[in-house]
This record gives sequence, C-alpha cells and structure tokens, in this order.
Amino acid sequence: MKRTINVALIGYKFMGKAHSNGLKKLPMFFDLDADIKMKVLCGRDPEWVKQSAAKFGWDDIETNWVEMFKRSDIDVVDITAPSNVHKEIAIAAMESGKNVFCEKPLALNVADAREMVAAAQKSGVKNQIGFNYRFVPAICLAKKMIDDGVLGKIFHFRGVFLQDWIIDPNFPLVWRLDKSVAGSGSLGDLGAHVIDTARFLVGDFKKVVGIEKTFVNKRPIVEKMIGLSGSASANSPMGDVTVDDATLMMGEFECGALCSIEASRFANGHNNDMSFEINGSKGSIRFSFERMNELEFYNNEDPNGLKGFRTISVTEGNHPYINAWWPAGHVIGYEHTFVHEFYEFFSSIINDTPNSPDFVEGMKCSQVIEAIETSIKNGCWININEI
Amino acid sequence: MKRTINVALIGYKFMGKAHSNGLKKLPMFFDLDADIKMKVLCGRDPEWVKQSAAKFGWDDIETNWVEMFKRSDIDVVDITAPSNVHKEIAIAAMESGKNVFCEKPLALNVADAREMVAAAQKSGVKNQIGFNYRFVPAICLAKKMIDDGVLGKIFHFRGVFLQDWIIDPNFPLVWRLDKSVAGSGSLGDLGAHVIDTARFLVGDFKKVVGIEKTFVNKRPIVEKMIGLSGSASANSPMGDVTVDDATLMMGEFECGALCSIEASRFANGHNNDMSFEINGSKGSIRFSFERMNELEFYNNEDPNGLKGFRTISVTEGNHPYINAWWPAGHVIGYEHTFVHEFYEFFSSIINDTPNSPDFVEGMKCSQVIEAIETSIKNGCWININEI
Amino acid sequence: MKRTINVALIGYKFMGKAHSNGLKKLPMFFDLDADIKMKVLCGRDPEWVKQSAAKFGWDDIETNWVEMFKRSDIDVVDITAPSNVHKEIAIAAMESGKNVFCEKPLALNVADAREMVAAAQKSGVKNQIGFNYRFVPAICLAKKMIDDGVLGKIFHFRGVFLQDWIIDPNFPLVWRLDKSVAGSGSLGDLGAHVIDTARFLVGDFKKVVGIEKTFVNKRPIVEKMIGLSGSASANSPMGDVTVDDATLMMGEFECGALCSIEASRFANGHNNDMSFEINGSKGSIRFSFERMNELEFYNNEDPNGLKGFRTISVTEGNHPYINAWWPAGHVIGYEHTFVHEFYEFFSSIINDTPNSPDFVEGMKCSQVIEAIETSIKNGCWININEI
Amino acid sequence: MKRTINVALIGYKFMGKAHSNGLKKLPMFFDLDADIKMKVLCGRDPEWVKQSAAKFGWDDIETNWVEMFKRSDIDVVDITAPSNVHKEIAIAAMESGKNVFCEKPLALNVADAREMVAAAQKSGVKNQIGFNYRFVPAICLAKKMIDDGVLGKIFHFRGVFLQDWIIDPNFPLVWRLDKSVAGSGSLGDLGAHVIDTARFLVGDFKKVVGIEKTFVNKRPIVEKMIGLSGSASANSPMGDVTVDDATLMMGEFECGALCSIEASRFANGHNNDMSFEINGSKGSIRFSFERMNELEFYNNEDPNGLKGFRTISVTEGNHPYINAWWPAGHVIGYEHTFVHEFYEFFSSIINDTPNSPDFVEGMKCSQVIEAIETSIKNGCWININEI
Repeated sequence: MKRTINVALIGYKFMGKAHSNGLKKLPMFFDLDADIKMKVLCGRDPEWVKQSAAKFGWDDIETNWVEMFKRSDIDVVDITAPSNVHKEIAIAAMESGKNVFCEKPLALNVADAREMVAAAQKSGVKNQIGFNYRFVPAICLAKKMIDDGVLGKIFHFRGVFLQDWIIDPNFPLVWRLDKSVAGSGSLGDLGAHVIDTARFLVGDFKKVVGIEKTFVNKRPIVEKMIGLSGSASANSPMGDVTVDDATLMMGEFECGALCSIEASRFANGHNNDMSFEINGSKGSIRFSFERMNELEFYNNEDPNGLKGFRTISVTEGNHPYINAWWPAGHVIGYEHTFVHEFYEFFSSIINDTPNSPDFVEGMKCSQVIEAIETSIKNGCWININEI
Repeated sequence: MKRTINVALIGYKFMGKAHSNGLKKLPMFFDLDADIKMKVLCGRDPEWVKQSAAKFGWDDIETNWVEMFKRSDIDVVDITAPSNVHKEIAIAAMESGKNVFCEKPLALNVADAREMVAAAQKSGVKNQIGFNYRFVPAICLAKKMIDDGVLGKIFHFRGVFLQDWIIDPNFPLVWRLDKSVAGSGSLGDLGAHVIDTARFLVGDFKKVVGIEKTFVNKRPIVEKMIGLSGSASANSPMGDVTVDDATLMMGEFECGALCSIEASRFANGHNNDMSFEINGSKGSIRFSFERMNELEFYNNEDPNGLKGFRTISVTEGNHPYINAWWPAGHVIGYEHTFVHEFYEFFSSIINDTPNSPDFVEGMKCSQVIEAIETSIKNGCWININEI
Repeated sequence: MKRTINVALIGYKFMGKAHSNGLKKLPMFFDLDADIKMKVLCGRDPEWVKQSAAKFGWDDIETNWVEMFKRSDIDVVDITAPSNVHKEIAIAAMESGKNVFCEKPLALNVADAREMVAAAQKSGVKNQIGFNYRFVPAICLAKKMIDDGVLGKIFHFRGVFLQDWIIDPNFPLVWRLDKSVAGSGSLGDLGAHVIDTARFLVGDFKKVVGIEKTFVNKRPIVEKMIGLSGSASANSPMGDVTVDDATLMMGEFECGALCSIEASRFANGHNNDMSFEINGSKGSIRFSFERMNELEFYNNEDPNGLKGFRTISVTEGNHPYINAWWPAGHVIGYEHTFVHEFYEFFSSIINDTPNSPDFVEGMKCSQVIEAIETSIKNGCWININEI
Repeated sequence: MKRTINVALIGYKFMGKAHSNGLKKLPMFFDLDADIKMKVLCGRDPEWVKQSAAKFGWDDIETNWVEMFKRSDIDVVDITAPSNVHKEIAIAAMESGKNVFCEKPLALNVADAREMVAAAQKSGVKNQIGFNYRFVPAICLAKKMIDDGVLGKIFHFRGVFLQDWIIDPNFPLVWRLDKSVAGSGSLGDLGAHVIDTARFLVGDFKKVVGIEKTFVNKRPIVEKMIGLSGSASANSPMGDVTVDDATLMMGEFECGALCSIEASRFANGHNNDMSFEINGSKGSIRFSFERMNELEFYNNEDPNGLKGFRTISVTEGNHPYINAWWPAGHVIGYEHTFVHEFYEFFSSIINDTPNSPDFVEGMKCSQVIEAIETSIKNGCWININEI
C-alpha cells in the first residue's frame, strides 16, 4: 500500500493555478511511490478559495495558515502567496515540521533569505524554491552537456528576459510597479530567473555591476485589478512608479567566465523572452523560452566545413523528463515545468534523497540581486562575497 | 445545480492517455455549464484497464463495450480504439443514444465512413471526429484570418507531414506497417491531418493525383511491441511492409487554388513536422507544428519597403483559447489541442448547438484519401466527386 | 607571357550586366593562366550598346552578330540575348569556331536543344549553359556532400521557386507573360533552376506529372517597358496572358527518390525564393537562395539526443570558391555565382579540360520541362525517355 | 566632358583589395558626374605593389607616400595602411590638399583623432572614415525608420560583435594580438563597429562601464604570417597576448536609452556576427550581419493579435542603394558596402556637399572606446564628456 502525502497550497491566483495543475498531472505521468493528495487550498477570501478549490480539485479549504499549520494531516506546504509573506509562512511551516516548497523569490532580501535557510537547516525538512525554468527539458539538457564537458571551459554567459507589457504610459500603476509590495521590478521578477539559470549552468558569481532605469515615472492609479493589469479611467490620479522598468548587469563568474544579463519590460515584441547563450571552448548553446522545446548547439568538434548551430528538438524519449510525455516532436509547454519540479521535490521526500534547488540556492540568487542593487545605488562594482 | 455528463473512454494507449488528460484539464481551465465526469474506462485487458483507470483518474472500468453501451449512466462515448473497429463501435454507441467522439480516421474507407455518417444522422446524437490539429490556436487564428478575408483569394496550399522514425531498415515490422491492421501508411496516418487542415482552411478538393513509395519492403518481424516501435533480434524472420513509406499528392481545390501535400516517414530530421503555407492575393501564412505557438503572416498591405513575414506568438489573451491558459509568451503544447476540441464538443452537447468537425468532415477527408489511393493505383488524375 | 582570351558578349540588359560584372571581377579574385579581355559588346541598338560598353568596361562594340562572328579576334561568345534566338546565335558562333557560353534556357524546346548539342559536338568547341545556381557555394557544398555519401541513399527532393511580382491583376502584360516571346512562364523561368539543381544533386528523372494555372488571364497591354515591369494607363486595352502563373510537378528519379517542385509568381512574401530540401538515409540538407550563404544539414550520425538541423555558414576558407573572396562570415551575393561559373568555363578553355554544365545538361533540363508540359497537356504521367 | 577624379590607394592587403573592388564597381552601378580613375597603388614592397596593381586594376604604383603626395595628379587619398600610421598619412595628405578617405579606426587614441579632425577642418578637404557597416542597406533602412519616428522613443540598444577564430590556445600570436601594433583587441576591432552603429542610430553616449578579459595569455610566437593567422611550430617560443580577447560594456545614451555591447573573439559558432536589437516605444528592429540582406521589424501599431517580428528582405528597388543592383531577392554581400560608402564620398566631392561619417564621427567613436578602456582600468563608470 502506497504512502499518502498530503499537500496544502497557499495562494490561488496565477501561480496557485499553475501549481494546482502541476500537482494534478504529476501522478498521471510520473511514477511515484506515494499518493500525492491535493488536500487543502488556503487563501484569505473564503468565497474565492472555495470556488478555486472546486475548480482546481482540492479536497478542503482553509483561510488562515497559522491555524492550518496546526493540522497534523499536512505533509507539504506549497507557498504561492505574495513575496513579502514568504519568509513568515515558510518558517512557520518548517517549524511545524512540514516540508516546504516556496515560489521564487525566496524573500525580499538576503537577510531574510538567510533566516529561512537557517530555519530550514534547523528543521531538517525538505525545502525547495520554485525556479521552474531549471526544469525546462532543454535547460536540463544544457546542464547535462556542460557537466559532461561538451562545451569545454565556459567563456561567456549572455542572457536576457524581455517583456513588453507596460510600455504604454497609460498602463496603470499595478502592484508589480509598487516597491513596497513587489520588492523589485524587472530585476527581481525577470532577472532572477536568468541569474538562477546562469548560476545553475555556469556557477557562482564573483562580481557585478548594474544600471537600471524607470522610463515611465508616473502612472494612473489602478481602480480595479484585472489579471496582470487593471483598469484606470481617464481622470485617474497619477502615482509614482517605484521599481525599475529595466535593469542591466555585467559580471564575472568565479570560474572566470564573463556575464551580461538584461531584464526589461520595455522591449517591444517580446512577450516572455527568457533567452541566453553560453560560449565555451568546445562549443556553444542557445536557448529561448518562447521556443522552449528547442536547444541550439554548436559543436566545434564537428568536421571542418560542416559546423553550425544545430536546433535540437528536445522532445525525444532520451531527453530529460520527455519519456513521461508524448512521442517525439509533440511539444510540451510552460506548465510542464511545474510537474517536473514537483516530481523532484516529492521524490526527495519519498526517498529521503537530496533535492535541488533548495533554499540555499534561493538565497544565493537573492545575494546576486542584492549585489546588483547595491552596485546601482553606489555606482560601482560589487563583489558578491561582500553581500 | 449543474448537470453531469458521464463519459466512457474506449482505449488506454497513447490516444487514451491524451484524451484522459484532456478531459481532466477541461473543467479546470474552461467554464462549462455541466460537470464532466470521467466515468468509465473500457479496454480488453482487465489488468491494464484497471491500472490505467487508476493512473488516469477514471471511476470505473469495463472490458466489453457491447455490455457497456447497455448502461444508462453514460452520456458520451469517446473512441480511441484501433481504426478498424471505429465503425462498429461508433454505430453501436450512437444506436444506444450516446453522443460519440471518435479519433481519426473515421473509418478505413469511404463506404464505411458514409455508413457512420448515416447512422449519426439517424440517431441525432452529437458526433465529432478527433482532428485535433484544427484546435491548435495558431491554426484557429489562420482560419479566422482567412474567413475575415485577410489573405484575400487563395492561390496555393503547400503542406507536408514529415517524420523519420522508420528509416533504419532494421526497424521492425510494427503494426503501423501492416495494411491489414493500419489501413494505410504515411498517407492515412500523417497526410490525413494535412488534408483535413487544407479542407478546413481552403475548402473542398476538386481533383488529385498521387504517387507513393515503400523504400524498405521487408523488415524483421516484431517479437515484442515497445511503445511505437518494438524489438527484433538479429535472427528475426523478415516480413513484408504493406503500406506506403511516403505519399505525395498534387491537386486543385474547388475554389481554384492549387495544392501539394507530402507525407513521409523517411524525412531525416523531422520528428513530427506538420507544416504548411498558404498564399493568397493579400497575404500569406505559414505554420509548423513543432513551433505550434507561432503563426507566420505576410501582409501585402503593409507599407512598401516594410513588408515581410512576421512571426506572431499565438499566446496572447486575444488569441483563440489562450485566455483560458497562461500569460502571453507562456507557451502551450500538443496536449492542449485535446482540451480545446473537448471544450467545443461538450459545449455543443450542453447548449445543443452545432459542432465541428463532425463525422461528415471525417468522411470528406476519407474521400480525398481514397481519391489519392485510386490515383496511385490507376496512375491518373481522379476527380473527388467520382469517389 | 600569358595568353589572351577575347570575349564577345551579346546582350546588355539584366543578364548582360550580370555577365559583364562577372567577367570584370574574375581576374581580380581568381588566378587564371590567361588574360580575359572584355573585347566586344554586341547589341542591336547602337546608342544603347555604346553607352553600356562604356559603363560596363567593354573595349569595342558591334551591332550585328553575323558580322561579328567573322572577326578572328574573338575566342569566346557569351550569349544573353532573348531565349528565342539562343539556338541561331549559338550554332553560328560554334560553326565559326568560337567557344560558347549560353544563358539558360538553352532553347525553347528539346528539338532545338538537341540541334545545339549536335552542333557543339561537331564543332568541338567548349560550350556551357548558364545554370548559375549550381555555383552558389552552399549548393556546391551540397553536391560534394552527396557525392561523398554524407546523406546516404536519397529518398526525397522537395523544391520550390516562389516569387510574387505579378499578383496585382493590374500589373501589365510584359513580355515574360507572352508565350511567343518567353516560351514559358514560371515553369521555364523559375522551375528550370530547380529542375537543374535536382538533376545536379540527385540525378536524372524517370517520370513526371504536372499541373499549371494562370490565375489572371487578361492584363493591361504594356505601353512602355520599365525594367522587369512596365507601365499601363487606366484605359489600356487588355490582352491575354499566354503562360502559366504557377506550375507544380511531382516525379520520380531514376535512383528511386521522389520529387516535388513548385514554381509560382503568385506566392506573396517571396521575392526570389529558390529553396529545396533533400532527405537521405544518413541525413538531410536544406537550402534557400535568399539566405544563399547558408546550408542547413541534419546529420543522423550525430549522437542521440544531440541531433538537429545545423546552419552551416558557407563562408569559410575551406568552402567552395570562398577562399577567393573574404574572411569567414563576410557574406557574398547573387552576382558572385557568375564569377564562379566563368572561372570554370575559362579554366576548361585554358587547360582544355572538361567543363560542366555543358549544352547536354541544358538539353536534359529542357527534356524534363517538356515532359511536364506534355503531362499538363495530356493530363497524365509522362516518362522522360519518351521525350 | 566629365571631370576625372584620380585616386591613390595606400595598402593592398585585405582592406586594399576590398577598396579596389569597391572603386572598380562604383562606375558600373552608380551614375556619378565624374570619371573615378584608379590611378596609383602605394605600398612599401615594390614587387607586391606591382603585382597587386596589375591584379586589382591600378594604373601606376608608388612605394613612398611622402613622395606620392607631391604629385599634382592625385585628387583623393584612400588609406588602408595599418592603424598606427593613419594619423601621419592622413594629415600629410590633407596638408597637400588631397581629399582623404581613411579606414577605421581613425587613430589609436582620442588625442590623435582630435589632431586629425583639426587638420581636416584647417585643410577644408573632404574627409571620410570607413565605417562601412553604416552602408549595409538594412542599416540604412533602420536609420531612416528611426529618423521617421517609426520606432518612437528609443529605450534599448543591445549589440554584439562575436567571432571565434582565436579560441584554440595554439593559435599563434599574430599582430592583432599585439597591443603595440594593433592598439586594441576585440574592443577596437569589433566593438568599434557596434559603437559606431549605436551612435549612428541612437545618438551620443553619456556614460559607460566596461569589463575585459584575456582568456589565453600566452601564445606561440608566429614564424610566418598566413592571411589573418600565421603558422607556429610545435617548439615555437611563447609570447604575451597584450590585448583583450573579449570586452563587454554597458552604458546610457544622451537620450536616456540604455545600451549593452559585447565584443568577443571567443564566441564559438560566430564567424562575423555583428548583431543588434533596438527597442522603442512604437516598435523594435533586429539586425545580424551574417544575414545582412534582412532587417527584422516589430511594429507595435499592427493590429492586436497580428503583431510579430517581420523579416524584411532589404533587397527591393525602394530600399537604400538596391536600385543600383539586382532584382528583388537577389542578395548582395559584404563588399557592396564599400561601393556605397565610396558613392557617398565621391558624390560629396563632385557636388561639394556634406558627407558622413567624417573624421569627427571617427573621433567620437574613439572617445567612447577610450572611455570604456578608462572604465576598465579604473574599475568605475566614466562620463563620455570627461574623455
């Protein structure tokens, strides 16, 4: 008889839906030696939580996570609540002995992130951070290639995360543009994914320098939130945008490779373009999220005259995680990355094996972000080990 | 209180899994005025059916569809059984008053397909054929553009469906290479999707001519099936390949446009490459399934000097079906097409509205295929209305 | 002291300019053991010829080729006159002992082409046909790869030549749309290049079937020619278009591979898109003229999981003809193909070595075209050896 | 009777050949109200100069530019000599009243560049710097689009110039890797082109920060130069690489846009990849030199749901300079940029009109490069107006 692992999910918006879908698909496509039960959905608004639980397939609801953590029938807490409550909730959950999966960012600053790491180490529970881009099969393949030495010594990492949804100056002042709520703008929201991917593939950073810009400084105050955006009437009063519209950084890795990363919400033509290229002594790879089923690979050891970037369709049975899905060429999407990260997280709980990326990885990413922010504030280079 | 619609699925292999997943996701992402219940999974092998039902989330199992159709608690029968039993099952289901969703191909020949259409008309139930490529958002967008006159008068449809999984002559003689089981080779398996897409977007065919080829005529007889392939030992006896490895056709539509379609399993480098281009008097479009979130569009009404094929990321809220999924640029995959076709099918049942593609569409596709086969056999052009 | 080879060029329009430019660049970039002298430019209009000769760099002019052939100081005749006079001029030139380079098509029909081949064989002079696409370095590389067995046994050739310059029904009735002058429409003008490339790379054809279409049957009669187009006033009388706007063919090669080729002037978004793909047992290649510096190559012998179409930048020193030009990545263009074909032609004269493509190749291309035309006329398959 | 303009070219290597070819083609394709005469080729080695003059088509030779400048039959001096003699030669030429075209970089540092600008202004002759990438038709089109406001307010310029020819640590210590000869490494050689393009399209820089890296510090000393490379035996002694293998910069333009530029010779898979993207409030453009006949354009004013980056084939008659060349889709190459820049230069001499880019532009580019070098040396941000 299989063991049952009961999950409680906190949050039911965009990420809550993505996590629910991921949990629902997990047992259908991956073999786990336990039943993963979607036990409780937790949120503040009882009506919304109830509706969402019915729609997403959760057995039960809660409206107060403090109370919920007293329940003994919960094994895993999955946090998709706003970033500014991650620390409080995660530490409480771990102190009550629950394994914790926390959406990115781990916390709003490095000090908080370090507290969370300490709490995790003290509690001994499994903890994981939701860097779901690590679980795109093409990026897993990239990791394997680098670990196997296929690219040789790495010289360059060049990444961007470009979006274009706030270029219109009449776009309203949604919560993501308010520092007190969002913590950061394009750097924390978008840049974080690229920074984590860079760390995942190339290793730790040594030093960084950054520049940021807010192209539109005042926007109409939101009257009503609608999805990611919101509405504002012609006469809406104006409020201050307090986060960066775009942030660029350059830096060096511990291994000596150079890095440049750009995060922007002002790049017309880019919906969700998280792209990077890595150049090594034996070859190069390129990835672009909007074509997430592909990895481009240049092999300098191909015969002379026949070299070139090849587009690998990372949809074949021998590619990471693909065997669980469909035949070759039958592409998967964004949502599948959540199934993969949950598979790793629950496997580590079931088999008591190490998992990654854990809270330490989340903290290290925050460290790079804080170094960039410090560089911008002080107008100088910052060594990561000073943060 | 919402009405409940109980579904019975026949088949649990590749397509059974894709359909189960589609049904499971449907209520989470689309609002329907009924509860879609995954009631019964039906298959011949009781042990396998039981395991699959548990894994996929079906309440109950059956091993005999004749018996199952006697149950009064089933509203919809979804058929993913082998092609050669589609007719028998579908007609029986419709005669017992069940609405029927049938995987493609509708039947092995036009005569059978016509019987099914007649049975459907007599029964009055809702019937739909699983041409899931019609439900790729980019193809829905293409349809809308053509209907809106954005491309003007159509001159050319140029399509391929290319795969490469049987090039190795040691690849064994799996059932898909046996005409008595599969009915057809690359034409029926791959070409059918392109033919249906051509009909969906450009309209009915007038005349066709075809050529086919079997590049490898004898293959080792399979000892054990493994997924799509199978194994054969070094000393396996050889058997005859009785279907086409590749089929090409040319033709003319009723509207006067020209057409060429190629289906091949011998096109190295193509996993599941269903691609087409349509040229009209005002513009052109291009699609390739392995980049199914994109549609290329050339607008001849753009300003001179600034014209060119643009790549539309069909992932935005105003694109077909996308609003139900994720934010712009967060791509979806192959499996989502099933959710979309089920959404249309169940909507038509709930609201008693027309649905498409129904069995008539399935029959008309078979008619084109049979015309091509006749052309190949007789070495001449065939008018569709002669079939 | 180097030998001098004196050239006479007949024609000074688009092709005359391209040939003049090619001859002018030849000695600067390629080492030949002779001086290639641009001796005489010949055309009917003395004023135009004079101006063109000055502009293009010809020493002398002639207005009558019959007279010109009496000159003993001419070694090579290069023919870019209209297609319908190729035969007469070429035979006269060869009979007067001149080596002949003739633009494509060799002649307006196979019978004429055969006469030219016979005259060439009788005269013993060097003769070459201007299939300049064979001299795109990427296509030369493709040829070498196929000859070296890199693609293995060939299964498919799939080619198109698409343009879009006559879609507007008000575009006037230029000479290219008049059969009595042009001989053929898209088939002879565009399709011929693809057919020759297919023959060059895959070998001789066995049988073909074709379909053609004239989408716009009447057009305003031209009042004044302007470049490729011309002008027509609002009240211009209408005349009949007597050539094909688009022609499609399918066929089989002697080697057993299948072929499809489409030529159209009604493909919106395509300026000069001569593209093809070849699939073989060991790999595939793709080429598109508008990216003529690239060749895509899929190598099925790459390691599993790392296969994909790679884009070879055919601009490196070890690629065909590139060493004569610029460093890697410094792309070349359409006009360079003429330099390459002249290099081969003059080398064969200087060293008295075989050259290709000669008139026999031109005749064999005409044979395929005539087979397609016959197929269209008769509505049936045609074996090449019947033509 | 047309005026004659006599040109003297200094240098006969890679750039000398490119300039000779450009001058030779100029009168054939562009109408100028003067005869451009390739009068004198000047170089130190009499034998090489003589051979090159014969091959490239120069009337006369000189081996001493000091003597040559005394000649009264020279109107234009075209300098392709090594960078470290640009200043001396250009100033002498201008002082003797000759118009001067000088290859990039203008000089090895800003102080020298300023002297050259002063000499140019004093002399009153026409002067131009060889930023030939400005004359790629696609970049000219980009300039026109930006000037016409098609992109709106500019937010981002993101550029790279990537090559891969010195990754092998056994590649010898050629002169380009020796600071005393080359002045700079990847920054001056490659970055300069991107910096000039950024200035051309977006405007002047305000501040910059840089980082550089030499990945391979010691290389075998060259025994014999071969083209761009050279040979070294197994026992060659090792010498120090004294220039940067890669340099990255970030910065801000005067207009407020952000900039990042990367120049590297260690980017496997890139032959000559000068690429950039510009994002503005109304649209974006992308360019990549290895596909120099194309410009990608995203128009945010296209209808919702139909937006996307379109690939403009910049080969049509209404595109900059194209009318002089071939029909649409008949691509041109790297060498054509020289014809275009000469066309502008000689037009300005003939008509006594302003020309661009002149020595002031060359000096301003040097200023940005020196600011980046200072930033790297001092580890801090540098304002351009401090240089």
